[in-house]
Amino acid sequence: MINIAIIGYGYWGPNLLRNFNANSNCNVKYLVDGREDRLKIAKNQYPNIETVTNIESIIEDSNLHAVVIATPVFTHFELAKLAIEHGKHVLIEKPMTSNSKEAQLLIEIAEKKGLLLMVDHTFLYTGAVQKIKQFINKNEIGNLQYFDSTRINLGLVQSDVNVLWDLAPHDLSILFYLHNEKPISVQATGVSHTRNGIENIAYLTINYQSNFIAHFNCSWSSPVKLRNILIGGDQKMILFNDIEPAEKIKIYDTGFQIKNDEDKHRLLIDYRVGDIFVPKIDQKEALQSMAEDFAQGILNKVTPISNAHKALEVVKVLEAAQISIKNNGKEVKLDSLWSL
Amino acid sequence: MINIAIIGYGYWGPNLLRNFNANSNCNVKYLVDGREDRLKIAKNQYPNIETVTNIESIIEDSNLHAVVIATPVFTHFELAKLAIEHGKHVLIEKPMTSNSKEAQLLIEIAEKKGLLLMVDHTFLYTGAVQKIKQFINKNEIGNLQYFDSTRINLGLVQSDVNVLWDLAPHDLSILFYLHNEKPISVQATGVSHTRNGIENIAYLTINYQSNFIAHFNCSWSSPVKLRNILIGGDQKMILFNDIEPAEKIKIYDTGFQIKNDEDKHRLLIDYRVGDIFVPKIDQKEALQSMAEDFAQGILNKVTPISNAHKALEVVKVLEAAQISIKNNGKEVKLDSLWSL
Amino acid sequence: MINIAIIGYGYWGPNLLRNFNANSNCNVKYLVDGREDRLKIAKNQYPNIETVTNIESIIEDSNLHAVVIATPVFTHFELAKLAIEHGKHVLIEKPMTSNSKEAQLLIEIAEKKGLLLMVDHTFLYTGAVQKIKQFINKNEIGNLQYFDSTRINLGLVQSDVNVLWDLAPHDLSILFYLHNEKPISVQATGVSHTRNGIENIAYLTINYQSNFIAHFNCSWSSPVKLRNILIGGDQKMILFNDIEPAEKIKIYDTGFQIKNDEDKHRLLIDYRVGDIFVPKIDQKEALQSMAEDFAQGILNKVTPISNAHKALEVVKVLEAAQISIKNNGKEVKLDSLWSL
Amino acid sequence: MINIAIIGYGYWGPNLLRNFNANSNCNVKYLVDGREDRLKIAKNQYPNIETVTNIESIIEDSNLHAVVIATPVFTHFELAKLAIEHGKHVLIEKPMTSNSKEAQLLIEIAEKKGLLLMVDHTFLYTGAVQKIKQFINKNEIGNLQYFDSTRINLGLVQSDVNVLWDLAPHDLSILFYLHNEKPISVQATGVSHTRNGIENIAYLTINYQSNFIAHFNCSWSSPVKLRNILIGGDQKMILFNDIEPAEKIKIYDTGFQIKNDEDKHRLLIDYRVGDIFVPKIDQKEALQSMAEDFAQGILNKVTPISNAHKALEVVKVLEAAQISIKNNGKEVKLDSLWSL
Repeated sequence: MINIAIIGYGYWGPNLLRNFNANSNCNVKYLVDGREDRLKIAKNQYPNIETVTNIESIIEDSNLHAVVIATPVFTHFELAKLAIEHGKHVLIEKPMTSNSKEAQLLIEIAEKKGLLLMVDHTFLYTGAVQKIKQFINKNEIGNLQYFDSTRINLGLVQSDVNVLWDLAPHDLSILFYLHNEKPISVQATGVSHTRNGIENIAYLTINYQSNFIAHFNCSWSSPVKLRNILIGGDQKMILFNDIEPAEKIKIYDTGFQIKNDEDKHRLLIDYRVGDIFVPKIDQKEALQSMAEDFAQGILNKVTPISNAHKALEVVKVLEAAQISIKNNGKEVKLDSLWSL
Repeated sequence: MINIAIIGYGYWGPNLLRNFNANSNCNVKYLVDGREDRLKIAKNQYPNIETVTNIESIIEDSNLHAVVIATPVFTHFELAKLAIEHGKHVLIEKPMTSNSKEAQLLIEIAEKKGLLLMVDHTFLYTGAVQKIKQFINKNEIGNLQYFDSTRINLGLVQSDVNVLWDLAPHDLSILFYLHNEKPISVQATGVSHTRNGIENIAYLTINYQSNFIAHFNCSWSSPVKLRNILIGGDQKMILFNDIEPAEKIKIYDTGFQIKNDEDKHRLLIDYRVGDIFVPKIDQKEALQSMAEDFAQGILNKVTPISNAHKALEVVKVLEAAQISIKNNGKEVKLDSLWSL
Repeated sequence: MINIAIIGYGYWGPNLLRNFNANSNCNVKYLVDGREDRLKIAKNQYPNIETVTNIESIIEDSNLHAVVIATPVFTHFELAKLAIEHGKHVLIEKPMTSNSKEAQLLIEIAEKKGLLLMVDHTFLYTGAVQKIKQFINKNEIGNLQYFDSTRINLGLVQSDVNVLWDLAPHDLSILFYLHNEKPISVQATGVSHTRNGIENIAYLTINYQSNFIAHFNCSWSSPVKLRNILIGGDQKMILFNDIEPAEKIKIYDTGFQIKNDEDKHRLLIDYRVGDIFVPKIDQKEALQSMAEDFAQGILNKVTPISNAHKALEVVKVLEAAQISIKNNGKEVKLDSLWSL
Repeated sequence: MINIAIIGYGYWGPNLLRNFNANSNCNVKYLVDGREDRLKIAKNQYPNIETVTNIESIIEDSNLHAVVIATPVFTHFELAKLAIEHGKHVLIEKPMTSNSKEAQLLIEIAEKKGLLLMVDHTFLYTGAVQKIKQFINKNEIGNLQYFDSTRINLGLVQSDVNVLWDLAPHDLSILFYLHNEKPISVQATGVSHTRNGIENIAYLTINYQSNFIAHFNCSWSSPVKLRNILIGGDQKMILFNDIEPAEKIKIYDTGFQIKNDEDKHRLLIDYRVGDIFVPKIDQKEALQSMAEDFAQGILNKVTPISNAHKALEVVKVLEAAQISIKNNGKEVKLDSLWSL
């Protein structure tokens, strides 16, 4: 049985508590939050959990095996470092840290200590993303050509991070899970309609050595809610529409074949438009699978789906995008960050 | 009565012929196309029109008042120049020319001669765009904040122009019609999945002095057809979904107000979500209005909606986008082209 | 403070408990259910509520003012009768009773005792139905011409009541709330695909003295979930699509005017197709308003929206529909039941 | 080569003319219409066709092999009878005749003469219906359980036939093409909102010996356009949504299995919800296939898909529905008409 402390009982904390509490390999021993009223609410529903207001009072407990961090991003690094240094396995809410240097440091010290460091990119555990991964693994889609994400809605403008840091981690984690090629550079543009200069609309392109391209359209200022990802292969194409209740994934038997371009003025591409397949999606709660993946990572040394290396890639792209936005969209090579 | 010659009877020519033929101020005197078989088809349906295989044989006709050019883009400049030099008013299919220098030259010589030079950006004459323009003019939308267009589909890859030159003119002409601010610079990225290096997917951002931003997502390689434009104001927002048969335009009574940001950690924006209004759209064929606008421009010296200056702006952005794509998305100032 | 006992803690009971518990005029004193395990679950979450396994043990409590009945339909009559006879106000889950005779008897004895008898047709308290009622009251819709409901889905075939008794009460209660005319007769047809002969698909028509008509399409066997109600007036028409998250109600400025039919072979109707209006809907939980309506009915003798007389009409139509189905769809006059 | 005369050049005539003109087995020799202006329009486009104002002047032509009748319904019988008596094959627009007696008479005399009598139920030749038929034939759907059609829109109220005669023939012909069981009886209700008493809204149920049921919801008075047919089998279910441009047919791998009903209070049906398949639909114009089916019926004595016996069934149901509506929805046995 893995004894766990959950730190932070804000928006996401209750979901983590509920799912780790239900996991048969885990025992939530502590809940940590500076706000007494939040602790009280939790205590009411889970009377057996010990609630404390600071991590220091429990971090020395040798019977505590793992720490789950669901606090604001800027606190992730210090909390995770403290936990790892005390020999605890660590799960961090996405995004992993405020910058890639911190993320890399955490990975290094966790690896030295032989501890699991994982990041909760919950989306990877949804039935929809798992189903897409299956189709790609079975090579039904062919060579991936593009990844095009739109995640827009009326959203709460935040005071510390822009819309990319808020929304893009979902799509970036999905991209890196589905497509293994190492990205080369990013370009981002955005605009802020508030005085504090935090972008509420932003566009991000990720460039690759091959002719694969990834693009992200993120906005807190759209009157309509869209959550689309298009994934194009040369055999088939996928539409992942997360808003659709019954038809989240559509696999289009639509591809294109490049023909000889002898005649410059004739079509170069031969399109094939065929059937559409809408697979049934597993309805299991994603967080339940995430919690189990964390437990298995600890118990059986299995590399989790949402591992720290993938999460670092997400942070790197966000960091590079930030630099690009502040430099009028100039291309930022990821290698320049990679070397940190 | 304005005597007209239509040059080019390919994809769009028949629509132009049908609409100019039906216009009470215009008389289609000549149809010009090098392909005898195309001329024969037209002659069958319109026995009174004189068909010829080259423009030279008719351009000296002093009874010919105007020329409508519906040939491939790379021929626009020479044909239009010839016609203007012979004292004819000219309507050119979009995009106006292959580069902004040519477009500017045409404008100059047409103005010197006192002739009308107009470009057929048909979309501006649709009931939908006209309705949006009315709402903006009535100041119902407030200050415009963004313009976000998605125009993707399975499309025929062309041998001479990329997807931006093919699809973006529609959205660019709409943008410049609805929002008067002068754009500062553009950034574009794209990818080609064919050997000839012509981009089939491209993303374009247009930057402004104010915090207005415009973004365009164009693709010939999407399994789904999307034709969305989101126009955000600080009072209301508009969704123009051109695929919807009955609800093309939705006006969202959704706005945001910037509040004092005294407390950095509280919300800075106050959203208001209200009713949605779906106005009835005029169903009149857009080309019919376009033809009449051309006639009125000649007869009454009215500046047409789709005038050459706006069309030049479209060409400039396309040209700058091309430069940006070939330079890995670097920012291209429009002033650098403006000075040509 | 109204002391309440809730009887039945199955599917709906927890929602009733939560909402009455949150109502400032009500105090849930008792929870009654024969199943100890269900009581235990409730006790865990609401430690202050007294849980008992039978109604007899609490019905004599003079400090108990009202009883909420959420048990299977066939038990409603006996439980409600018992409660009324002991001087308790009563709220019954829909449908009120298994037949109209029972419903009428309950109304009679409750009126004699001066007690409130109300039925929980929750749908009437949704923001959507309230908004529709407002539009009708403001006379924007004109004279109502038809009510056409489709409520189909994959549903659990029940062992005691058919699909009409399960699904139609929602739509019938909405119809009777929005349109005051007294129905004359019903016709129903249906089919059972199970051995027990319980209809899983059924169609119901309600006839009126005027040329108003109401039709209901109910199915447990549809692969798609539809929840549409069309309400046609001679001025405007309403589409209530309960599945739409953001656009539940659309008001179509579409009407028809009857023209002189002098010429039998010309159109007799002049259609007007105009704008569509999608009003913002109040998001407040309907059950919260229902609980408050029950409380106000007791405290201030206000006739509740979902009153027993309207609920009786629902039962009468269901009963008549049952007779019609079993008689191959023959017309059943409601007066024949009315006289019971 | 089959020489054809087309009678009636109103709404549908031009489509028939265009398709028969393009058919390589047919030669449109005559066009017949009493209105000179209609003939002139046709003559302009098809100069080789002989136009005449009455059928008598050509019916004796022994070189005329077949007659296509596209005139108002009430004229079908006399025209078809005349043509058959002169030894011509006959194609009639749907619905075949105004009543089943006439339809039966035409069938009898055509069979005596050994001539082809066919009715143009165009919908049967659409790629969508053909695809559905294939799935049913391959036994993928299992035993059919229900057919539920909704065909509503704003429509022009007609002066001579009600909404069932106008809209239901499409759905009835599809039903009889897909499901072979002989219907037993019909019930119909409807309402007229015009002075001439012609129903603009009507509901029709068709009953069968088995537990199959068919239902039709037809309206000229809906603000939204719906064209849905649900076809339920015990293995899979089909949704045919004719308004969807790209996903007209969805095959739901959703079925239900009847389980032992030993325990009356447990579920009797076991639902299986699976993948959805959206087959590609053949885009060929349906009328083209219909014309070819008529030609093949003449040349090779192949029974056409849209044959007169099926068309007679459609007329019988319409006739019975009419009787039912006028008798307050009472059940009308089809055998009572059959015996005519």
